[in-house]
Amino acid sequence: MLKGRSLIDPMDFSPGELDEIFDLASQIIKSPESFSHVCDGKILATLFYEPSTRTRFSFEAAMLRLGGKVIGFSEPGSSSVSKGESVADTVRVVGCYADIIAMRHPKEGAPKVASIYSTIPVINAGDGGHQHPTQTLTDLLTIKSIKGSLDNLTIGLCGDLKFGRTVHSLIKAMSRYQNNRFILISPNELKVPDYIINELKNHHIEFEEMERLEDTIGSLDILYMTRVQKERFFNEEDYIRLKDSYILDSKKMDTAPKDMIVLHPLPRVNEISGEVDGDKRACYFKQAKYGMYVRMALMAELLGVNNLRED
Amino acid sequence: MLKGRSLIDPMDFSPGELDEIFDLASQIIKSPESFSHVCDGKILATLFYEPSTRTRFSFEAAMLRLGGKVIGFSEPGSSSVSKGESVADTVRVVGCYADIIAMRHPKEGAPKVASIYSTIPVINAGDGGHQHPTQTLTDLLTIKSIKGSLDNLTIGLCGDLKFGRTVHSLIKAMSRYQNNRFILISPNELKVPDYIINELKNHHIEFEEMERLEDTIGSLDILYMTRVQKERFFNEEDYIRLKDSYILDSKKMDTAPKDMIVLHPLPRVNEISGEVDGDKRACYFKQAKYGMYVRMALMAELLGVNNLRED
Amino acid sequence: MLKGRSLIDPMDFSPGELDEIFDLASQIIKSPESFSHVCDGKILATLFYEPSTRTRFSFEAAMLRLGGKVIGFSEPGSSSVSKGESVADTVRVVGCYADIIAMRHPKEGAPKVASIYSTIPVINAGDGGHQHPTQTLTDLLTIKSIKGSLDNLTIGLCGDLKFGRTVHSLIKAMSRYQNNRFILISPNELKVPDYIINELKNHHIEFEEMERLEDTIGSLDILYMTRVQKERFFNEEDYIRLKDSYILDSKKMDTAPKDMIVLHPLPRVNEISGEVDGDKRACYFKQAKYGMYVRMALMAELLGVNNLRED
Repeated sequence: MLKGRSLIDPMDFSPGELDEIFDLASQIIKSPESFSHVCDGKILATLFYEPSTRTRFSFEAAMLRLGGKVIGFSEPGSSSVSKGESVADTVRVVGCYADIIAMRHPKEGAPKVASIYSTIPVINAGDGGHQHPTQTLTDLLTIKSIKGSLDNLTIGLCGDLKFGRTVHSLIKAMSRYQNNRFILISPNELKVPDYIINELKNHHIEFEEMERLEDTIGSLDILYMTRVQKERFFNEEDYIRLKDSYILDSKKMDTAPKDMIVLHPLPRVNEISGEVDGDKRACYFKQAKYGMYVRMALMAELLGVNNLRED
Repeated sequence: MLKGRSLIDPMDFSPGELDEIFDLASQIIKSPESFSHVCDGKILATLFYEPSTRTRFSFEAAMLRLGGKVIGFSEPGSSSVSKGESVADTVRVVGCYADIIAMRHPKEGAPKVASIYSTIPVINAGDGGHQHPTQTLTDLLTIKSIKGSLDNLTIGLCGDLKFGRTVHSLIKAMSRYQNNRFILISPNELKVPDYIINELKNHHIEFEEMERLEDTIGSLDILYMTRVQKERFFNEEDYIRLKDSYILDSKKMDTAPKDMIVLHPLPRVNEISGEVDGDKRACYFKQAKYGMYVRMALMAELLGVNNLRED
Repeated sequence: MLKGRSLIDPMDFSPGELDEIFDLASQIIKSPESFSHVCDGKILATLFYEPSTRTRFSFEAAMLRLGGKVIGFSEPGSSSVSKGESVADTVRVVGCYADIIAMRHPKEGAPKVASIYSTIPVINAGDGGHQHPTQTLTDLLTIKSIKGSLDNLTIGLCGDLKFGRTVHSLIKAMSRYQNNRFILISPNELKVPDYIINELKNHHIEFEEMERLEDTIGSLDILYMTRVQKERFFNEEDYIRLKDSYILDSKKMDTAPKDMIVLHPLPRVNEISGEVDGDKRACYFKQAKYGMYVRMALMAELLGVNNLRED
């Protein structure tokens, strides 16, 4: 039962609860019209204390396509933050106006605090470098929908694996399914943190660390590319030296399996060459669409308006 | 008849007209679904020349919950102001797109000017330190709904009574009802201005000025707390010396009547301690909800779509 | 057939296609209720990389009045631009969430690029000093609606004719209709560019260049006033010397024909005196309303939901 719950950490929901969301998402994808009024009369509040157009659009479109409506702000400048109000008070007031909150905040833990005080469900839409659970749900739904399963997959994760929260969450989330194998492809300076490696070891999950995408792309079911964010580097030189090391192009795609899919949380800068966009295996724009569908399913579940399934 | 009218000053409407709004609000509170389509096809324009998230959300949620829709801006940066357009022209153009305007403006009198040129109703959503009539309507509806009446009440107003426009408006508004008594609790530097005192005297309305909340809290029906805004002080020292003088905590609440209610226009900083939030008499979050309901009733009246009452 | 098309340049559509839009607009004006649900379930994305409140409001109100919904941003600060994403990627992602895009961009050609990559129709809502096709559609619908025809008209264009993109587009657009005549009224420094003059000559279209509005106002069917934008001048002195040269006031209106109409793309600063606003011939606020109607018709056509006409 997800009604009334909040989603703060990607691991908040059990695999069974996630299945409930993915099942609903599949039904929505098959017949969006059947769900176009389940949120009639509901209001989503998008409280974005830092801008994130893509994520905000995804949430807002999701609510609108369920028949609901939206209030919100997209940056701190237009909020009451400057008046010194606490997040706790803000969500208690917003709970008077709205039915569900999607909160983006530069400070780790802010959505957690919000969920404690809120009278309505709170969805963490990203808190600093910490968590971004709806991205993880997006990734899982995309994989499940295109590959048909979340088990028995060889998943290559490529790029900045040190700072990328989406990568960490995806590893943890996919580790809960059966018989998955991780290929961690990154420069030495941007390797997956030790605590994740330890978790993989403790759970006896197969993984390998690699330096070159070319050496492993032929063995992958999924290639998850990530952006090398300039702001993560301590100095400009390191950035320039490394940023082009992990660029996916047609040449590399030629050596990849025919049914491998390429994912990317977006926005990309140049880590996937434009020439790959036309490749059938390039699924990163589809992924954005699944992101909207999974948010539709998530909000319908948290609001308890998923009753179409009982029909 | 309120259809087509604007609301600029809290005193624009007669007590009889206010009753019409409060009656409609009560019906909406009882049966919100009955009103969820009265504004179908209507558009509210929120013209916020300075940010005020709470007030904007309240207006927008109110319109959405009536079935209407919203266009707007939340700060001057995203408006045409920089192109040198007059408020008069802006509202004449906005009147081509929308059915009703809620305007927040840093300049006193701007909403008044707007209402003169506008072809559609204009609601003043706050103009500088001047007026904020929907806050007053919120306060009145909250008091009427919880205390059952707007007469025969002892109202304590505590904090910055010099600069707080909501306090001034509430005193004037409550003075129009029968047999109310005001206890004005403030530091000497932040006392109610003379013109308000003179009005109270001229109308033979009972009031007392106090320095300490502790000395009078036991006699109150309503305690209206206000924020001591840092920006109102001429120097930092004065602010630091005074800001904690008027903090409501559990200890003070212990000496208050069992049926006293605590109100606050929000946002609060630290003038009400968090430990008071759980007290049944703490009504400031409820007040925010009444704020949405009274704006629903107000807009339905100004748009002339309150006809459910005739059924 | 306009379904699925984009509108980037005012000349993208043939006169026949424009007639289709104007016909639909006329029907919407006559019976807006009949069209209040044709965009049910549709989402407009307003991607405004620079603020333009008026244009954004017009698009948003248009979509809302067709029953659709809106997501968007109103300035670059709240977008993902700062993360280095290309316009091509942005529109491909937005195409996952929305059904149609209205894009305002400071860079010439950006909406064109967007339309190449987008899977959904893109409407150019202004790209730098380049194009603003919906303003041209607005002007044409206004003239057609009030004057009854787009042929046989003497059109005076007054003010900054050098930098004003709306003026250039209007000249080109009106040149496609029969037997129109242009009177180009501007200071020598702000004359229509040579390429436009050459086009008029090549198409044997009658025109005259004038310096004083007084000398020609008596002969006009339409007077199209434009703002002298301070930012177009190379130095302050030139601006001050010229800005008041072309102000329309009651005295000038006294010498104008009884059925001449005054148009202006707005916002105005002081090029039309407030005393003219009450004159029946002052149609610039009506023009803003036609702007909303023509955008309703345009979006309904591009989305293929104009089927009411077949009934």
